[in-house]
Amino acid sequence: MVKDGEKLIVRTPEQFKEIQNIEVLTEHRVTRIDSEEKRMEVIDLKESYTRHLSFDKIVIATGARSRRLHLPGSNGNNVFALKSVQDGYDIRTFVDEKKPKRAIILGAGYISLEMCEAFIERGLETWIMYRGELPASNLDPEISEMISKEIQDKGVQFVSNCHVASFTTDAAGNVTRVESDQGSYPTDLVLVALGVVPNVELAQQTGVSLGNTGAVRVDPCQRTNFRDVFAGGDCCESFHLVSGEPVYAPLGDIANKQGRVAGENAAGGDTTFYGIVGSLAFKVFDLEVALTGLSTKVATAHGFDVETQIIQHQSRVGYMPGSKPMTVKLVFDRKTGRLLGGQMIGKEGVARRINTLAVALHQGMGVDEIARLDFAYAPPFSPTFDPILIAAEQASKKVLKR
Amino acid sequence: MVKDGEKLIVRTPEQFKEIQNIEVLTEHRVTRIDSEEKRMEVIDLKESYTRHLSFDKIVIATGARSRRLHLPGSNGNNVFALKSVQDGYDIRTFVDEKKPKRAIILGAGYISLEMCEAFIERGLETWIMYRGELPASNLDPEISEMISKEIQDKGVQFVSNCHVASFTTDAAGNVTRVESDQGSYPTDLVLVALGVVPNVELAQQTGVSLGNTGAVRVDPCQRTNFRDVFAGGDCCESFHLVSGEPVYAPLGDIANKQGRVAGENAAGGDTTFYGIVGSLAFKVFDLEVALTGLSTKVATAHGFDVETQIIQHQSRVGYMPGSKPMTVKLVFDRKTGRLLGGQMIGKEGVARRINTLAVALHQGMGVDEIARLDFAYAPPFSPTFDPILIAAEQASKKVLKR
Repeated sequence: MVKDGEKLIVRTPEQFKEIQNIEVLTEHRVTRIDSEEKRMEVIDLKESYTRHLSFDKIVIATGARSRRLHLPGSNGNNVFALKSVQDGYDIRTFVDEKKPKRAIILGAGYISLEMCEAFIERGLETWIMYRGELPASNLDPEISEMISKEIQDKGVQFVSNCHVASFTTDAAGNVTRVESDQGSYPTDLVLVALGVVPNVELAQQTGVSLGNTGAVRVDPCQRTNFRDVFAGGDCCESFHLVSGEPVYAPLGDIANKQGRVAGENAAGGDTTFYGIVGSLAFKVFDLEVALTGLSTKVATAHGFDVETQIIQHQSRVGYMPGSKPMTVKLVFDRKTGRLLGGQMIGKEGVARRINTLAVALHQGMGVDEIARLDFAYAPPFSPTFDPILIAAEQASKKVLKR
Repeated sequence: MVKDGEKLIVRTPEQFKEIQNIEVLTEHRVTRIDSEEKRMEVIDLKESYTRHLSFDKIVIATGARSRRLHLPGSNGNNVFALKSVQDGYDIRTFVDEKKPKRAIILGAGYISLEMCEAFIERGLETWIMYRGELPASNLDPEISEMISKEIQDKGVQFVSNCHVASFTTDAAGNVTRVESDQGSYPTDLVLVALGVVPNVELAQQTGVSLGNTGAVRVDPCQRTNFRDVFAGGDCCESFHLVSGEPVYAPLGDIANKQGRVAGENAAGGDTTFYGIVGSLAFKVFDLEVALTGLSTKVATAHGFDVETQIIQHQSRVGYMPGSKPMTVKLVFDRKTGRLLGGQMIGKEGVARRINTLAVALHQGMGVDEIARLDFAYAPPFSPTFDPILIAAEQASKKVLKR
C-alpha cells in the first residue's frame, strides 16, 4: 500500500516550469480549436475570462473519464468513481470520516477488483454487482473463475448477472440501497467502476475524426486527420498488432508512449508508435493475473480458427520453498500454430513472466517456436521447464500438420 | 533452503521400472562400446563380473565431473567438490560432525557463489580464492563487481588473482592450510569449485568425435558421428544460436532437453534440439543475477563490433513498497543494432525478466525493436517503462545510422 498520495504525482506544474520550461495552465478550459487558423479559445476558469492562443502544432491529450450511470439517485453524495488521484482522496476521506460499514462496487473490471481489496482491508462489507457472469470478462472463463473464487474467499460478495435499476437515497442525499433485478441491496457507499470513456468532445468540435471505437483515430505518428493536430493517451485509439485493428486501450504505459511520440512529432521529429499487443497485469488479493494478446472470444470474433491449451504448473521447482501453483492458457491459430494470446494466473511469478509471450506476439511466433526457447532455469525462480514452455509444447501438438 | 535431500531425487531406479518399465542398472560400468557390432562390455561392479549387452541404438549420457586439482595435498579428507546429491550430503555431514570454523572455496563461479552463502549461513568463516579479478567472470565486470561487493558485505573474504600452489595436511590427512602466491591461508574445509569437465572417455574409446570444446560433438538430432550412437546432457556440446558455434554449456535444463531429443530419436523419432542462447540465472545472498546471450568479451572474441548500454532502474514503480534498484546491461552490434546479450542484477524481479531478452535473441531482434515492445505494466510488478525497455531505448541511440 502507498501511504502518501503525494508520491503518486510524477511532476507538478511548478516542476514542469522549473525543469523543462514548460508552462502548464491549470484550471483553463479550451473551448474551441480552429485548425485552419491555428488558434484556440481558452477560458481561464479562475479569473473567468476568455483568451485566444495561437499554435503551430497541437497535441490533444484530453484523456478519459469514468463512465457514469444515469439512473435515479446515481448522483448521490456517497457515489464515487475512481479515475484521478483526487477521486482516491475523496473515497479515503469518506471512509475515514463517515465510517461506512458496507460498500457496493458496480462493475467487475480491474478497478473494481483492486478496490474491493482496499475496501475489505478497511473492514467494509463489500459487494460487487456485475451484469456479466464472471469478473474480468476480457479474460477467458477459466481464469475469471479463479479470480471469482479468490475474491469470494477473501470475503467479497459477488452478485452476477445483475442489472442495476435505481438508487434509493435518504433525505441527506446519500444512497442507502441499490435496486437491481437481483434484489435490493443496502449500502453506505457506491463505487461506479464501469470503465472509462475517451474525452473526445473537443476533438470532435475541431473536426478531428474518431475511429469505430469512439476514440480519436490516429496514424502511427499519432497524427489525426489534420496535419498539425496530434493526439495521444486515453483519448485516442491504439493499433493492435495481433488483430491488425485499432482498439481502445486506455492504459498508463500506452498513454505514456503515445504521448512521447505525439510530442516528438509535434516538435518536428519523426517517430512512430508501432502499436500494442494488449499486455497487462494486475493483482487481486493474493493472486497475480496477466494477459497479452487476444482472448479466445476476441480471437474468434476476429475470424481466427482458435485452439487453446491450458496447463497447471508450479512457479519454481517443486522442492523449493515458496513454489506456488500457477495456470497458463495459450490461445493460438489451429492451422498455423501462431500464438494469438496468453493468460496467466497464480500467487507468484506471473506478472513478470507474461512479457515473454508479449515478445512472441510482436514477432508472430508459433507455439512450436515458443516451446524451443532457451529460458533461464534456476530452482528459486522456475521449474526446469518454465510453465510457458510446457504449455507451448502441449499446444504445438494440437496444431494441424500440413 | 531445501531441508530434505530426498526431494532432490526426481525418480529412483525402482520408479523407472514401475512407471515406465525402464531397467536401470546402477553400479554397472560400460567399458567398451562396439558401434559396428552393436555390442558393449559392462562390468557389474557389485558382483564383479563382466557381461556383454547388444543394442540397436545407444545414447551416451555420461555427464560431467567436477574439475579436480592435482596438487600436493589436494586429495585430503576435508577436500570436497559439489556435483552430485551425495557430494552435498558429504559436505553437510562433515560440517555437522567436524564443526569446521573456516572454509576455503577455490573458484568463483555459480557453485562457489551459492556455496559461500550456505557456509556463511552455517556460521563458517568463508574465503573464496580465485585466479581472476572478479567472481562470475562470464559476466561483464560491472555486474561481477556488484556480486563481489555483495558477498563481501555478507562476510565472505574474496582473494583475487590468487594461484594455489599446494595444500598443507596434518597427520590425519586433513588440509590445514592452502598455500598460494597470495599467501598461506589456514582452513578446516576446502571446496574445489572449478567447474566441470565432460565425461568423454567412453565416447572417445568408441571412436565418437569430440568438438573443439572437448565435449562430444552432436548434430541437431543429438546424433554423434555414428548413425546409431546419440549423446545428450553434460557430456556433449550445444549449438549457440547467437555466436553460431558449438559451446560447452553443462546446465540442467539444457541437459534435460537434449536427453529428450536424443531419446526420442534413438527410439525412432525425428526431432531436433535447435540450440541455446545461453540463458541462466542464479541467486547469491540477496541478489538475483541473470544473463542470456554473449558477454561483451565473448561477443568481441566472436568478431562482433560490440557496443553496450548499462542502466540503473527500479524493479517496480518507485512509490511502491518493495521496489528495489536493478541494473540492466545490453550487449549489441554497433552497426546493425542486433541484440547479442543481456545481463541483469538486483534484489528482485531479475531472474524472470531475463527471458524476454532470450526470446529477442532467438528472434535476432534489434535493440530498437526491443524498445518498442508492449510489456505488461502494473505498479506492483514494474515501472511504467520496464528497465529492459529503457535500456533498449538508450541502446538504440548508439546504433550507427545507415
